[in-house]
Amino acid sequence: MDTTPEHLSESERVARLRLYRSENVGPVAFRQLLARFRTGTVALEALPALAKRGGRRRKLTVCPAAEAERELEALDAAGGWMVHRGEAGFPPLLSMVEDAPPLLSGLGHPHLLTRPAIGIVGARECSLNGRRLAERFGRDLAAAGYAVVSGMAKGIDAAAHAGALEGGTVAVLAGGVDIIYPRENTGLYHDIRERGALVSEMPMGLIGQARHFPRRNRIISGLSLGILVVEARQRSGSLITARLAGEHGREVFALPGSPLDPRARGPNDLIRKGAALVESPEEIITLLRDLPGTYAVEEPGDPFSDGIVAAPEESDLAPARAAITQALSPTPIGVDDLVRHLGLPVPIVVTVLLEMDLAGTVERLPGNRVAALMEGE
Amino acid sequence: MDTTPEHLSESERVARLRLYRSENVGPVAFRQLLARFRTGTVALEALPALAKRGGRRRKLTVCPAAEAERELEALDAAGGWMVHRGEAGFPPLLSMVEDAPPLLSGLGHPHLLTRPAIGIVGARECSLNGRRLAERFGRDLAAAGYAVVSGMAKGIDAAAHAGALEGGTVAVLAGGVDIIYPRENTGLYHDIRERGALVSEMPMGLIGQARHFPRRNRIISGLSLGILVVEARQRSGSLITARLAGEHGREVFALPGSPLDPRARGPNDLIRKGAALVESPEEIITLLRDLPGTYAVEEPGDPFSDGIVAAPEESDLAPARAAITQALSPTPIGVDDLVRHLGLPVPIVVTVLLEMDLAGTVERLPGNRVAALMEGE
Repeated sequence: MDTTPEHLSESERVARLRLYRSENVGPVAFRQLLARFRTGTVALEALPALAKRGGRRRKLTVCPAAEAERELEALDAAGGWMVHRGEAGFPPLLSMVEDAPPLLSGLGHPHLLTRPAIGIVGARECSLNGRRLAERFGRDLAAAGYAVVSGMAKGIDAAAHAGALEGGTVAVLAGGVDIIYPRENTGLYHDIRERGALVSEMPMGLIGQARHFPRRNRIISGLSLGILVVEARQRSGSLITARLAGEHGREVFALPGSPLDPRARGPNDLIRKGAALVESPEEIITLLRDLPGTYAVEEPGDPFSDGIVAAPEESDLAPARAAITQALSPTPIGVDDLVRHLGLPVPIVVTVLLEMDLAGTVERLPGNRVAALMEGE
Repeated sequence: MDTTPEHLSESERVARLRLYRSENVGPVAFRQLLARFRTGTVALEALPALAKRGGRRRKLTVCPAAEAERELEALDAAGGWMVHRGEAGFPPLLSMVEDAPPLLSGLGHPHLLTRPAIGIVGARECSLNGRRLAERFGRDLAAAGYAVVSGMAKGIDAAAHAGALEGGTVAVLAGGVDIIYPRENTGLYHDIRERGALVSEMPMGLIGQARHFPRRNRIISGLSLGILVVEARQRSGSLITARLAGEHGREVFALPGSPLDPRARGPNDLIRKGAALVESPEEIITLLRDLPGTYAVEEPGDPFSDGIVAAPEESDLAPARAAITQALSPTPIGVDDLVRHLGLPVPIVVTVLLEMDLAGTVERLPGNRVAALMEGE
């Protein structure tokens, strides 16, 4: 792999933005398209044909150049910036995540994205004690040189950001970076914009919705060496972030609490499953310092160079397409399992899934899993 | 080993009681004396000579027969009972502990001593929530068929006993079984006497003191399949009981708590060190049920038959005595380390240490360690 950061031309940056804003292009499809076509410009041209081969009947909506340029102008007018995966300013740990966003829009201080980071997440309806703890951990971890990452939700998230404002904090938003949500965090939003950083993979103006939260959570986890869960009920978003952190090979820290407090269920359960019980910020700092060097970060350079490059022959793809279509169901299955089950070569399966993904007939799920999307969905 | 319970004659029971009530005869010395001399009667006779060989100048005070008989009469008058290690009614798990008491006095229901047991310990100055939890765990574990063991201290201990009164509870006292301590537990004492069991290795009338607490704690741990710590500050007696449980190969359970609560420090720290985090009694029940059969309990029968029986020759002992005396200091050392360091046969070292123990020139410490006692101590 190339070890120098990429210098993308303006036209390639626009092409990549258009590619990511095109219908059915998720982070995994984006990665595979770049691996195969090398540039956004070429991938963009290939897009409609690929979708058609994946079973698409309606024409795939490719993001028009004018729309991408409008987004970049609006971002620029707001004093914001965009950083692409492979560029020097892209967060190196996030780049290692399989479904990392290929680009991030941001407001505020971009240098915070390349600082070692710790995520702090927890309940919206937190206790006063939980809030105090989140603020203290935010403050002390930021003072120790870590960027404190969270999702700017109310409750624990907001407290962690507030505590870390001075030392350095990064808010990952589910909507566009110009959209303040929730409204009660308006003051905090402006504080972070001035002293920290706000980032999102979504276009300016997009209003974040509940279905965007898991995508936001994977960025929080992807940015972070470890995730601290402060208060969380069972089956809450914070636990999903913690699970993602585990899947991303990151540390999971949890603040314990009384069995009588339902908000302690989440962290207690994480501890039971192997998360590190912590009572003070110093413990996290010590635990991270004592980690073996497993976080040797991917060097900047072309991050798309190690994918599948050669396109398989159509004569190989046609029978595979039928077998894969039959094998898939709405119940998610691992791509590895699919490969094993069908006994087909990996590049064939990956190519067919990419085409179906673009066609909107399969859905990508975390953990390299896929599911069939039923007609009309 | 003999697998039928022992039937001790009345005179042997009195001899064993006298032996254990004699000066400098601790549980380890008692065990070694029985292993060597087979009966309390013979060991009792040998006692003064052994102490003298260990460097004793004043004559060792052997418990007079009349004193032992007075103790048994008082116990009998109170409606109590005494059970010796090796007898069918002696708690089987306790029998497996190296420094198990060779006998227990008791009031109440002796059958509770042979039930599978769980210890619940914690802070005297507990929170109301801690008290509620201890009571609930006590009640539910006792209802599930476990004897709930504790130390009848105020706070967590008292709450655990109170919760388990109906199902079955065992209070281990630091003083004699007839001594109510602390006074505020007078009602609880009478309740346990009536519906549970009160036990002690100490003679009737002895007022327990702080220095007796560690000995009491080892009995709580020794009786129990596992120890649950509810609330405990750092460096508290409850943590000593938990440490003993670890040394005894028993389970350690801990109820987590907020980092803001100093009474959670103890349990949280235990969890950090590997104790099982639990939030409900059901979890303990499940964890104990799923244990591999490591608690195959020592069958009743002569528990003293596997010790050192043959007495070494005095010609071997004399030089060993000098070497051991020189090697020991007030800083505790493991008997195994001592054996390794000196390169002497185990029976020689054990015999010399037994004599020194009886002479009052060495002190036995938990974990099979010994320390020199300086003159005048």
